[in-house]
Amino acid sequence: MFNFDFHNPTHIAFGKGRVADLAKLVPASAKVLILVGGASAEKTGTLAEVRSALGERAHSTFAGIEPNPGFDTAMQAVNQIRSEGFDFLLAVGGGSVIDATKFIAAAVPFEGDPWTILLKGGRNIQSALPFGAVLTLPATGSEMNNGGVITRRDMGAKLPFRSSHVFPRFAVLDPTKTYTLPVQQLANGVVDAFVHTVEQYLTYPSHAPVQDRFAEGLLQTLVEVGPRLLDAKEPVYDDRATLMWAATLALNGLIGAGVPQDWSTHMIGHELTALHNIDHARTLAIVLPAMLHERRVQKRDKLLQYGQRVWGIRSGTEDERIAAAIENTRTFFEHMGIPTRLRDYGLDASVVSAVVAQLESHGMTQLGEHRDIDLAVSRRVLEAAL
Amino acid sequence: MFNFDFHNPTHIAFGKGRVADLAKLVPASAKVLILVGGASAEKTGTLAEVRSALGERAHSTFAGIEPNPGFDTAMQAVNQIRSEGFDFLLAVGGGSVIDATKFIAAAVPFEGDPWTILLKGGRNIQSALPFGAVLTLPATGSEMNNGGVITRRDMGAKLPFRSSHVFPRFAVLDPTKTYTLPVQQLANGVVDAFVHTVEQYLTYPSHAPVQDRFAEGLLQTLVEVGPRLLDAKEPVYDDRATLMWAATLALNGLIGAGVPQDWSTHMIGHELTALHNIDHARTLAIVLPAMLHERRVQKRDKLLQYGQRVWGIRSGTEDERIAAAIENTRTFFEHMGIPTRLRDYGLDASVVSAVVAQLESHGMTQLGEHRDIDLAVSRRVLEAAL
Repeated sequence: MFNFDFHNPTHIAFGKGRVADLAKLVPASAKVLILVGGASAEKTGTLAEVRSALGERAHSTFAGIEPNPGFDTAMQAVNQIRSEGFDFLLAVGGGSVIDATKFIAAAVPFEGDPWTILLKGGRNIQSALPFGAVLTLPATGSEMNNGGVITRRDMGAKLPFRSSHVFPRFAVLDPTKTYTLPVQQLANGVVDAFVHTVEQYLTYPSHAPVQDRFAEGLLQTLVEVGPRLLDAKEPVYDDRATLMWAATLALNGLIGAGVPQDWSTHMIGHELTALHNIDHARTLAIVLPAMLHERRVQKRDKLLQYGQRVWGIRSGTEDERIAAAIENTRTFFEHMGIPTRLRDYGLDASVVSAVVAQLESHGMTQLGEHRDIDLAVSRRVLEAAL
Repeated sequence: MFNFDFHNPTHIAFGKGRVADLAKLVPASAKVLILVGGASAEKTGTLAEVRSALGERAHSTFAGIEPNPGFDTAMQAVNQIRSEGFDFLLAVGGGSVIDATKFIAAAVPFEGDPWTILLKGGRNIQSALPFGAVLTLPATGSEMNNGGVITRRDMGAKLPFRSSHVFPRFAVLDPTKTYTLPVQQLANGVVDAFVHTVEQYLTYPSHAPVQDRFAEGLLQTLVEVGPRLLDAKEPVYDDRATLMWAATLALNGLIGAGVPQDWSTHMIGHELTALHNIDHARTLAIVLPAMLHERRVQKRDKLLQYGQRVWGIRSGTEDERIAAAIENTRTFFEHMGIPTRLRDYGLDASVVSAVVAQLESHGMTQLGEHRDIDLAVSRRVLEAAL
């Protein structure tokens, strides 16, 4: 096990009816800017619930944070906050809204050009406005971590940042808030949480059996609950709750503490989203099976363990078991309604070089747990994903 | 899944050499009282390391916190802190030292008789001095939670308390600090963490698959690592690290979030420690197998799941599989060198009534996840544990 720090101060308020707890969770004297995506938070009544819980607190709403939230949109919110003097932010939505809120919270007090926050991955963040989150879309884990990703469309760039200053003060996780989600967003959430877990687990053995078991537990749970979520005629509370808590735990720092991490699938996926506007989770479903196959030698021991513990694969040669583990992963994504080939999204070999060029321009030339996934390897992965 | 709050702000600094991080973790202007148990922290050099990391900060040491820390000892520290004006506490030791430090931290600013903190289970705690911990004995999980247990020997009472004010600010977890522990203390640590996990898991199914998998992952890990820890001729870093992290995660609020909990084994065990001075972990090893057998009807579904997932029991009738799961639990404790019968500790049937009377006097008349473990049931459990 590697040395590590684990410090996650976000207060999780989980369960039915917990939006009402905003009355206690938000400071009584706060002037609150609520941040939302499209119209759904208003339409579903969640915003009305939020406003009611805020009671006498001064508040306003900033709407229009898009999926893969944009730098320009975020800066509009920053300007509004600076000019109107809001001192507490409340993200109501999924990972995109929460990621944007993190960036905005850091950008408001930032001296200099907030764009440099993204150029430096957040290392230059010195402070941030306090903020909380009401999660409506379980997937990214942003509600209980200190990272985010912001897209700059004019540059085709999707850049991550991280800072201890941007943990949400609290996150309200009410599984009933997922009841109005389209089934495709549930499927995206399952796959996103699954790949987050894989990127912190499927590397090389590092004598960290607790982290392994926790990661495997999340993967097993997602494999069990995923198809049930898709098949259910009516929302089942416990399954929604399971997805919501699993997605949070998949990326709150716990399972990745003290172990090697990969994230190459994410970095290649980010470029696919930035260039071709494919949903984040779908880019992961495209890249991961190809990546695991490409890295089957380096990841051999963990692929065997993954096959046995997550998929119950016990027969066949080692090579056959590894192939079966990767094939099961692909089949799982496909069963979740998420195609795993670039051709399924209308893309062919002509896109590969552009993605590789973007990886190069973003410095993504040494990816993976061994930092040996260079541009040639990424190219092979993309070609295998056609 | 039940509604829950999860909020654990303790900063974990894990790994070799992390005691040096006290230089950053303790506020620069703090006047520090270091609290320790016996002479071992001094003898092993840990205290010297701690003092060196504290640098120029004013500090003093309070020694003599005993296993099952006593109210009177804690109050001596409270008086010293009040008269000498320490404003930061640093526990260096195991669960006893950290539990005592929590109580002391709450008692120093407490208005009125601190004894009432224990009578009210901590609900009347309004504030506490800030404190951190350097863990030397992995077992209780106190380093990352907000609870403790204090013993009042003149009353034969061992009383728990809990408050959001008594989370450690940080905990330094250096697995090499366990290298000097006697093997019996390692075994106690394994069993303590195991039973903490069981008390939050082995109840009834509550549609919380992530919590189940995490709990099972901790149990599987302890079953794997426990015998290796005992057999090793020289300390193995990764196994010590695994025990340390597993014991912390067994009682930091995570696996118990949103699920029913039992704690009857602990409550009965506390009385055995208070009356007969048996190590905490050993009382758990005595009570748990008898309790599981007594509650085999109420816990039927989870006992079957536990047998299959933790012990790999798949054959036999359901009753046989349940009996095998309980027997495996007892055998595991015995293999860890911890006897599981009251007679092994020189106690016979004559002690049962006194333990039951103490349970009654402490209000422990409705224990367990169904609150239906009354004094008659507790008596049967004790008789079965003879």
